Amino acid sequence: MKSLFYPSSVVVIGVSTKPFNMGKEIARNLFEFGYNGVIHLVGTEEGVFFGRRIHQSLDEIDEPIDLAVILTPARTVPDIVEQCGRKGIKRIVIESGGFGEFGDEGRGLGEMLKSIADTYDIRFIGPNCIGIMNASNGLSTPFATMKNVFRKGGVGIAAQSGGVALSFLNMFDCEQIGYSKFTTLGNKMNIDENDILEFYMEDPETNVICMYLESVKDGRRFTEIAARSDKPVVVHKANIANLSSHIAHSHTEALANDDQVVDAALWQAGVVRFKEMQSYLDFVKILQLPEMKGRNLAIVSRSGGHAVIAADAAYTYNFHLPPLREDFLKEIRKHLRANVINLANPLDLGDLFDFEVYLRIVEHTIQEDNVDGILLLQTYFAAIEGEASRKMLQSAALVSQKYQKPVALCVQTEQSELSRLHKEIDFPIFMSPERAIAALDKSIKYYDRKRFMAGNAVVTNPEPRPDDSAIRTLIDTLNNQCRSPLLNEALDIIRLVGISTPEYQLVRNSEPPDLLVPGPYALKIVADSVSHKSDVGGVVLNLRDKDALAGACAEMMERFSEADPAGMLVQTMVQRPPGSFELIVGGKRDPQFGPMVMLGHGGIFVEVFGKATLRMAPLSLAEIEAMIEELPGSEILKGVRGRPPIDMTALKDAIHRIAHLMVRFPEISSIDVNPLLVTPQGAQALDCRIFLTWT
Amino acid sequence: MKSLFYPSSVVVIGVSTKPFNMGKEIARNLFEFGYNGVIHLVGTEEGVFFGRRIHQSLDEIDEPIDLAVILTPARTVPDIVEQCGRKGIKRIVIESGGFGEFGDEGRGLGEMLKSIADTYDIRFIGPNCIGIMNASNGLSTPFATMKNVFRKGGVGIAAQSGGVALSFLNMFDCEQIGYSKFTTLGNKMNIDENDILEFYMEDPETNVICMYLESVKDGRRFTEIAARSDKPVVVHKANIANLSSHIAHSHTEALANDDQVVDAALWQAGVVRFKEMQSYLDFVKILQLPEMKGRNLAIVSRSGGHAVIAADAAYTYNFHLPPLREDFLKEIRKHLRANVINLANPLDLGDLFDFEVYLRIVEHTIQEDNVDGILLLQTYFAAIEGEASRKMLQSAALVSQKYQKPVALCVQTEQSELSRLHKEIDFPIFMSPERAIAALDKSIKYYDRKRFMAGNAVVTNPEPRPDDSAIRTLIDTLNNQCRSPLLNEALDIIRLVGISTPEYQLVRNSEPPDLLVPGPYALKIVADSVSHKSDVGGVVLNLRDKDALAGACAEMMERFSEADPAGMLVQTMVQRPPGSFELIVGGKRDPQFGPMVMLGHGGIFVEVFGKATLRMAPLSLAEIEAMIEELPGSEILKGVRGRPPIDMTALKDAIHRIAHLMVRFPEISSIDVNPLLVTPQGAQALDCRIFLTWT
Repeated sequence: MKSLFYPSSVVVIGVSTKPFNMGKEIARNLFEFGYNGVIHLVGTEEGVFFGRRIHQSLDEIDEPIDLAVILTPARTVPDIVEQCGRKGIKRIVIESGGFGEFGDEGRGLGEMLKSIADTYDIRFIGPNCIGIMNASNGLSTPFATMKNVFRKGGVGIAAQSGGVALSFLNMFDCEQIGYSKFTTLGNKMNIDENDILEFYMEDPETNVICMYLESVKDGRRFTEIAARSDKPVVVHKANIANLSSHIAHSHTEALANDDQVVDAALWQAGVVRFKEMQSYLDFVKILQLPEMKGRNLAIVSRSGGHAVIAADAAYTYNFHLPPLREDFLKEIRKHLRANVINLANPLDLGDLFDFEVYLRIVEHTIQEDNVDGILLLQTYFAAIEGEASRKMLQSAALVSQKYQKPVALCVQTEQSELSRLHKEIDFPIFMSPERAIAALDKSIKYYDRKRFMAGNAVVTNPEPRPDDSAIRTLIDTLNNQCRSPLLNEALDIIRLVGISTPEYQLVRNSEPPDLLVPGPYALKIVADSVSHKSDVGGVVLNLRDKDALAGACAEMMERFSEADPAGMLVQTMVQRPPGSFELIVGGKRDPQFGPMVMLGHGGIFVEVFGKATLRMAPLSLAEIEAMIEELPGSEILKGVRGRPPIDMTALKDAIHRIAHLMVRFPEISSIDVNPLLVTPQGAQALDCRIFLTWT
Repeated sequence: MKSLFYPSSVVVIGVSTKPFNMGKEIARNLFEFGYNGVIHLVGTEEGVFFGRRIHQSLDEIDEPIDLAVILTPARTVPDIVEQCGRKGIKRIVIESGGFGEFGDEGRGLGEMLKSIADTYDIRFIGPNCIGIMNASNGLSTPFATMKNVFRKGGVGIAAQSGGVALSFLNMFDCEQIGYSKFTTLGNKMNIDENDILEFYMEDPETNVICMYLESVKDGRRFTEIAARSDKPVVVHKANIANLSSHIAHSHTEALANDDQVVDAALWQAGVVRFKEMQSYLDFVKILQLPEMKGRNLAIVSRSGGHAVIAADAAYTYNFHLPPLREDFLKEIRKHLRANVINLANPLDLGDLFDFEVYLRIVEHTIQEDNVDGILLLQTYFAAIEGEASRKMLQSAALVSQKYQKPVALCVQTEQSELSRLHKEIDFPIFMSPERAIAALDKSIKYYDRKRFMAGNAVVTNPEPRPDDSAIRTLIDTLNNQCRSPLLNEALDIIRLVGISTPEYQLVRNSEPPDLLVPGPYALKIVADSVSHKSDVGGVVLNLRDKDALAGACAEMMERFSEADPAGMLVQTMVQRPPGSFELIVGGKRDPQFGPMVMLGHGGIFVEVFGKATLRMAPLSLAEIEAMIEELPGSEILKGVRGRPPIDMTALKDAIHRIAHLMVRFPEISSIDVNPLLVTPQGAQALDCRIFLTWT
């Protein structure tokens, strides 16, 4: 990728001097941003632009060229790329639209592009993009007319949309955050986010990686690369409305839709994901501050009301407001005039008009051991206190750097003053206490996650288990028959992988002579055609003895005579001792992120309340423990109000084994162990569905 | 209140010409804002300020005075108010701090103030505030130094904090929203939010009422007044972190904490409540637009990426993006140059550079029958497209007014350009599509709620029921004994109010000779000292026959021998037919909002997942139905996946009867019917706790 961003020479193809020609704007930007290499222009008509002759063909240029930028009608692009290939150009930016995103003809052209690029060993960006920018050499290829006004800095921008990429550039600049590199990915036919991610991770000029993606090309690879990054990777993954329209045929699929998979997988890889731009920007701003190493926050405010609002936000985001030392408060009190304010944390300094004292208080506060960071709220009218406020805010920013604890500045003043502040103060400013505190919260979680990852190596290859070969045989048989396992076969697989189940036996008539399973019984229909068996009367529970079982068997065979059942499953009804829970443990193979494992609550309300927790498999023990912690209500599993705790070891073991199945047997598209009955002594799969890739 | 805001003359008490005197700043603001009445100044030392002599006493002024504004040390205030009373001044603004909010001495001074005011029939604002402002006569009493720069308009501001009130004024002004009246409430010792609310509702210059409250003085009265308002009442109720610290002794109390009560009660009264300022401001901005009358949204964007982000937000907030007519799209296509964009909704007009055509498209789109509103996304660089963009945005605003459908403008550009836009365009501008769409969503819910309220009159007095007198007798007895009802007595009350229960009987020894209740049995300990009986083994279920019951009785009496039990309750175990649900129906008497009724899900996870739904009692049938609709998972109650629907009539009836109890018997502080077993045929209270005000 380095040759893409650091070319010695660039040719822009598609330039004319006509008023609406956009290729010309690309060239203009290269001049405007002071690109430090040689610029060549090619177009269909003769002309001169910025003192450079417009050539009619690449052949007219007799120097080697490192990078071509193409903006011509789609149908002409394959031939131009071919010419580039012959000329030895290995890196191309294709900005033209009208390919894969636009009908069959476009798709055909796209295929041609790919194959020509392969022939000549060309890597290209796009098509349908506005190219790339490199702050360090002035390379700037957007066809949008731009001014060279953007601050240079450490943020590497990569976006699937040119418009959003420009918004990022502008938004960051407004917040005193400069860019290092800028990439728009367009249709991602050749170079994709994974290539750019790897490059930004190595790029010494980039320290935060900011991406906007509408689709993910190879999600698993993305997470593998990102997990190695020691630079924050922040992703706005959009397009959540466009969820795949296929109907979920298992609870796991319902509880783990595509977007939840994205959420879980990126978080697991230490990537901070957002679904909208505002909190994204706030997070990138908070990354400019020193890390907040704990949740002890001091709020310093010039208005009691704003302090209350900030305390509300601190409460909402689980920050602590530690009491400040009494002798410290006594010291502050000396500086107050009317002595009509109770000093505490939040520290309401509304009665203090000397901003130098104010600043000294901030500096003293941040040195307190029980303060991990400060939220400094300043409200003022520019005409009255503008100069003093700006000075104080700038100094508070220095205090933050000096003591390596964050001081989040939150300012409320006039729009024009805000605009001035943003220009003068080289430090992030937040628009509301809520937004600053939400960003601090997210940053603490991010740093925690990165520490967790550093301390717990990813498990890459699960050990084979003794019964894997028996499972393989079973799955191969099903594969040959092009069908998914029936209930009894699914339970066989679950048992083979090492998860307990109650005793069960397949019977084919109403009075099985060879019944070995002890009572009381549950009876379940086993038929390929019956999907949600409990919804259609295919489950009878609490059959006390063999007589009751025989009657239920006869009735069920009668009821399902037309469903071509393979038989009925007789299962021993298990006791539910106090402290038992029904959970769902499932697996799902995501087209982007591969095998996923899910843990959720069982029961009828699961899909209403049930925020499930998800991870990519394979899973380390620590990751399984983190998963359980994340489950809403996990504290109840540990025993509350006289209930004994569940058998955590058995639960973790069951999750581990489901992960094993998902990783070792790629034919499995989804698993539902529902419910997994977890008791204070052990865990048992009471019911199970497994789908192979056929279904 | 009118005489407070429209005085013919004002005296400012506490003025001196010394540099740090703040009373002087009050007078300065009256001059600065051009107050149209007579201004008198009073202070301890002689002097002249703005050409007016500073009097040493009120007695020196021999004209009648309508309003006094006091800013002197707290200890001097009661005497000054007394002087005002003698002088015949009936309205006072007391800005001094150091009263109830600051120790015992301050509280004593506060009590003196109240009683002097009562003696002289004085109404006063404060103490501990920055007073009031009236845009229409220049009355402006804050002691903060201010410039007369704020736009006049229809927003009435009232805030408990002076700092927040000033922030409101400034924030609104930045968004082209002007104020009509401005009130800071301070300690609310005399005039409170209810007085101001009533006044703003009548004030012809006010059309939106914007409040910031940290506490509520008489919540029930506030809701009663607000419910009558035909102007939107928008409240930031802060101080959520300061929840009352008493420990919840019932599930209802745990599920309905003070802040949830505020949420529910305000919503019920048609008040829109926020907990932070940003979404508050967005909502006030959206109120400046015509009402969006449905959820069909058209998104028009200059960038495909931003359109995707906006579509995500629309999806998140349940808006529909209706397809646009094909012949309409065909018309648009004529104006595009490269024809490389698929037209749909979101309408991506990235390829269109003629803003007049752009505007015509917006105007055509808004006229479509299946479009209720437009989100218009404009991204640009000021230097390149500033002028054309501003013109287009201004015209789009006119389109919104002309067709009486909202066009929410969302702009991304440089900070300085934004500042200019805000000055030039007299129409709200949103900073992100999410914020605009969230505000639209909230406004639709608000208008819906107001329509609901208009169509369903509030029930004010529940009819007495035949068994009310029996309940009264029972409660009076308990009252005399200073205790809350035991389990059996609570069930008696529930039964008397007309909610079914399984049969039950109190027994006192292990083999009751007179047992009339049919089996199977549940056995529960009945003891005042045992609170959570199931946590301590005080409940035994599924006792099949009298023998099992006798054994369990003996064991339980043994176990609780030291708890001084009143006996044990024998209850018939009820069947749970398919489609049954365990719910909680409860009541809670809130110190601010009075009797509240709660509906929630039962079971162990209720407090984890259980967003309960709450209302102030009494309740109309329509309100009960709205309550059930709000319950998470209410669709499941109506029958899904082969389950029969529950008996809705029985559920509504039970809620109605709990409301009746809460309204008719003010001694009841809380009720937990937990669980209420709701089946497809009926509803039964299986267990119940009732607390009287003793506990």
